[in-house]
Amino acid sequence: MLAETALETIPEELGKQPAVRADVEKRGKPAGEILLDRSLHHAAMLKLKDGEFRGRPDIAYHVILDVTSSPIYRAGKLDLYVHTRNDITLSFSKGLRPPRSYDRFRGLMEQLLKEGKVGGKEDLITAERGSFKEIINKAKPSSIVGLSKLGKRRTLPELLAEAGGARPCLVVGGFPAGHFSEEIERSLDSLVSISVQGLDASLVVCRLVYEMEKSVGVE
Amino acid sequence: MLAETALETIPEELGKQPAVRADVEKRGKPAGEILLDRSLHHAAMLKLKDGEFRGRPDIAYHVILDVTSSPIYRAGKLDLYVHTRNDITLSFSKGLRPPRSYDRFRGLMEQLLKEGKVGGKEDLITAERGSFKEIINKAKPSSIVGLSKLGKRRTLPELLAEAGGARPCLVVGGFPAGHFSEEIERSLDSLVSISVQGLDASLVVCRLVYEMEKSVGVE
Repeated sequence: MLAETALETIPEELGKQPAVRADVEKRGKPAGEILLDRSLHHAAMLKLKDGEFRGRPDIAYHVILDVTSSPIYRAGKLDLYVHTRNDITLSFSKGLRPPRSYDRFRGLMEQLLKEGKVGGKEDLITAERGSFKEIINKAKPSSIVGLSKLGKRRTLPELLAEAGGARPCLVVGGFPAGHFSEEIERSLDSLVSISVQGLDASLVVCRLVYEMEKSVGVE
Repeated sequence: MLAETALETIPEELGKQPAVRADVEKRGKPAGEILLDRSLHHAAMLKLKDGEFRGRPDIAYHVILDVTSSPIYRAGKLDLYVHTRNDITLSFSKGLRPPRSYDRFRGLMEQLLKEGKVGGKEDLITAERGSFKEIINKAKPSSIVGLSKLGKRRTLPELLAEAGGARPCLVVGGFPAGHFSEEIERSLDSLVSISVQGLDASLVVCRLVYEMEKSVGVE
């Protein structure tokens, strides 16, 4: 699971900022239906609360593509959840192949956050309100391990062996800087660090998925 | 090295196609300075020679971000080359941190393909004409191993052990479908498959980089 992901539409309080108004005009959509993106709205975000952790839709984009294109996901042996810092959780149907281009991905996420689902009758992706704890209570994993530079040092195979159980939930932060909130940390069974360096979420997820495939025996 | 990558500007023969003209107007740049992108120029590419292998700048984008954010690259122990199907080769300076957003990445690649370099006095990325063979002759790797579904089956650690030498060159295709050209295949010492499934280039590169770190001992 990607947790507290920096994926949201432009918050109301930024609606009058010039950088936002320019983008609203360019996109032909109201601000509340456009993804907040630091690369476009940087000037508008300077005074935004927790701004340094927000407006990085590229993180979800990379992770969602990396996971859904992996053999273990395609074999139906891995579920992906993307929890956002606004407590919305995206769930993905098995075999989903999201658009590869960022522009199309962005359009899909904007539609999803507006309508709660995309993909027609099949609901390929759904977005529901719910805190991290609520998702966990619903998914009932056998263990919950967070990955963070602040955790105890383990290799990925060690992490997977320790997580154990049939349905471990592995939690990676979907934000560009900082650490999990206290609320998330309290829900974790353990906190593990897989590198002395801070790693990008997509790099962590790629490595995790690869080691999971080796441990489960997916080819 | 990413080889025969689907990264190029819009070829002249597509200049009059409606999908291209619409994009030229939107971007305010001539077609020859805009990256060919299937997600935007699909209709214009229908009759393009080898069209199914072209117009996927997202592949280079993902791979370049994945490699340059890895600990082994940041430690200066891995060089990245992106060779395109038009025989242009991009070289990246140590410690480069390319833009994370696709729009900015696209702008950077367009400037690079036009001017041959970006990054001011430091030339952070350079683009030079040169065939795959010419790059290899210049880089003088100790061995050259291509990764392809058509190769002999090996795990990644086996591949790295067999490649051996101080400076192996590992070649991944930067295209969405198909296989290496004969010209590339002739230059390879061996061709190896790491999965029974065809994997996205970025997935292959992520896993390769991770195993290289383990084998070299980068933390």
